[in-house]
Amino acid sequence: MRQRLFIPGPVEVSQEVLLSLAKPLMGHRTKDFEEILIECWNMLKQVFKTKNDTLIITGSGTSAMDAAIASCISEGEEVICITGGKFGERLAEIARSYKARVKEVEVTWGETVSIEKVEEAVANSSAKAITLTHNETSTGVLHDAEKIGKIAKEYGLLFIVDGVSSVGGNEFKTDEWSIDIAITGSQKCLATPPGLAFLSVSNKAWEVIEDNDTRNYYLNLKFYRKSLKKNTTPFTPAVSLIYALHQALKEVFKEGLENRIKRHSILAKATREAVKAMNLELLPKEEVASNTVTAIKIPPKLSDDDIRGVMRREHGILLAGGQAQLKGKIFRIGHMGNVSYAELLGMLSALELTLKKAKHDFKLGGGIEAAESIIGKI
Amino acid sequence: MRQRLFIPGPVEVSQEVLLSLAKPLMGHRTKDFEEILIECWNMLKQVFKTKNDTLIITGSGTSAMDAAIASCISEGEEVICITGGKFGERLAEIARSYKARVKEVEVTWGETVSIEKVEEAVANSSAKAITLTHNETSTGVLHDAEKIGKIAKEYGLLFIVDGVSSVGGNEFKTDEWSIDIAITGSQKCLATPPGLAFLSVSNKAWEVIEDNDTRNYYLNLKFYRKSLKKNTTPFTPAVSLIYALHQALKEVFKEGLENRIKRHSILAKATREAVKAMNLELLPKEEVASNTVTAIKIPPKLSDDDIRGVMRREHGILLAGGQAQLKGKIFRIGHMGNVSYAELLGMLSALELTLKKAKHDFKLGGGIEAAESIIGKI
Repeated sequence: MRQRLFIPGPVEVSQEVLLSLAKPLMGHRTKDFEEILIECWNMLKQVFKTKNDTLIITGSGTSAMDAAIASCISEGEEVICITGGKFGERLAEIARSYKARVKEVEVTWGETVSIEKVEEAVANSSAKAITLTHNETSTGVLHDAEKIGKIAKEYGLLFIVDGVSSVGGNEFKTDEWSIDIAITGSQKCLATPPGLAFLSVSNKAWEVIEDNDTRNYYLNLKFYRKSLKKNTTPFTPAVSLIYALHQALKEVFKEGLENRIKRHSILAKATREAVKAMNLELLPKEEVASNTVTAIKIPPKLSDDDIRGVMRREHGILLAGGQAQLKGKIFRIGHMGNVSYAELLGMLSALELTLKKAKHDFKLGGGIEAAESIIGKI
Repeated sequence: MRQRLFIPGPVEVSQEVLLSLAKPLMGHRTKDFEEILIECWNMLKQVFKTKNDTLIITGSGTSAMDAAIASCISEGEEVICITGGKFGERLAEIARSYKARVKEVEVTWGETVSIEKVEEAVANSSAKAITLTHNETSTGVLHDAEKIGKIAKEYGLLFIVDGVSSVGGNEFKTDEWSIDIAITGSQKCLATPPGLAFLSVSNKAWEVIEDNDTRNYYLNLKFYRKSLKKNTTPFTPAVSLIYALHQALKEVFKEGLENRIKRHSILAKATREAVKAMNLELLPKEEVASNTVTAIKIPPKLSDDDIRGVMRREHGILLAGGQAQLKGKIFRIGHMGNVSYAELLGMLSALELTLKKAKHDFKLGGGIEAAESIIGKI
């Protein structure tokens, strides 16, 4: 039995995307490859909802986070980092590793950031930029990028947003929300294999980048800009993954970006209603819960293995565990990319059987009924 | 007509490798994926001929060059960089971008480095490391890594070697040659799609790395070491490319590494004899010419398009041009990876026709005869 991925990346990709990987390699400096790159950049602009430049890096999502920080921030400069989860903290860690002065707006893991606290931090600082993890994959919390964007704009700060697990699955309006650098990865809502990261960069950010004393080479965004003007990438890209991206983006627009976001939102709501009916508790409050990953507390009498182990061994379904301080305390269901309602319902049914096996107290079928009542409303 | 790649990367990969890319994605933190990673690391040790740790980075060859420099060298420290081509200069550029003091041992493009000059540079320096591009892809010159390794060892310098276009196609003995950090890429002699880079790191290098004040995050080798101990990678790897690498490395050992190196050497010699018989001039002296890429001067009466343009348009064969100061002056034939003798001969025949069309003076069939006489000796 092959494992079916319900983790927050890598996600299952379509068979068309898998087969596109198997196309013969092309020279990466040829006109034919240029055309594919240009189409990818343009489709990424639509995904990010931006007129800004879009860039493709061969690397993980973290490579793009690193590139953004390293290209904008110099030693001793102040950055405000909104944390509250593993990936929010990662942006702060990256900034610290480049010897920036990091002012952290701390958020309890599982909660959303207080806009007042952000405003207060910004008002009393000389920060150059503010970083936000739009959808915190480790806690399943969605932050309000729009409101924070307004503050960033008002105070003239660069707004750097990690949209790795939200772009393509959640509303994400780069230009409307004044996002100077938006970041996402291939292996999440865009349903492409891992290994590519994408950024959009505003003119305001380019000005900062051109002036910044960046030491990095591979992740120096200046080089990507220079190559962009020549319709190429500064370093040999992962050609096969670009084929896959090209196919996956076409599939995104075949479904329609808004339809895709709506589907993610229904998948998320159905999942939440189902797990509540299974007598499980969500980690975040529902009003800030993510469209793409649901974080659920492991009931006191159950272990991580009772849930994730049994799901994997008996149902061939891979769920994610908690990370860092949440390890063993929560499990996470990724419902991003191409997941259909039927696939979600099948996974949720397996979860019911798994919980029953562990003698968890709830009404068998209740979770599915709750999920169906959400999906049935469409 | 699909283009057949005779460029120095990306190269043609086997159909088995292409199809392995199309396998369904796995969770990158699963036991099953760990096993694939471990086998890849072990096969890479054999390819590098080392007992040192081997690492896999999702990125281009340059990402590994960057990681090596950034992880070993701090601001103000001295590095000796042997240049003499685009990639030798790139290592120096990377070191400079991290504000190292770079002492360049300059080499005329197309020539090999003088060992005396290296010894002189090392003797009069306080350098922490010496960098070498083993096979300079831009000029088709192979440098003597063994001799330089002896000097590095004698003076206690870290020896960092870019083997991107030599490992797997040329003799490369990491441990015997005292190479502390060896670097290679997926898309050259290992006949894997682009997007992965590999390093081997000696204990001596690890000591330096652990002590170094590295600012980088994604390309900080410390993180790769920490993850290696847990049989994983620090950041989500390009899972599909790892499948391809796994398959490609198995194919390397099915052929036999020594057989593969011998094949490359025959391909190179046959190419050189053929182009000489076609009344063309090699850029490097033959005794320092590369096993994997042959750099040939464009005859005064011919243009780059007369050769590469016609080869591409009429024969579907992609050759490489000159880079930087050699642009328009040379063309390059990549004969690395899985190229067979028959494929090489077909390409060389097309080159004869192309040259004849441009009214270049030589005896039609003479190049093929010369190449056959080399291949026939096996």
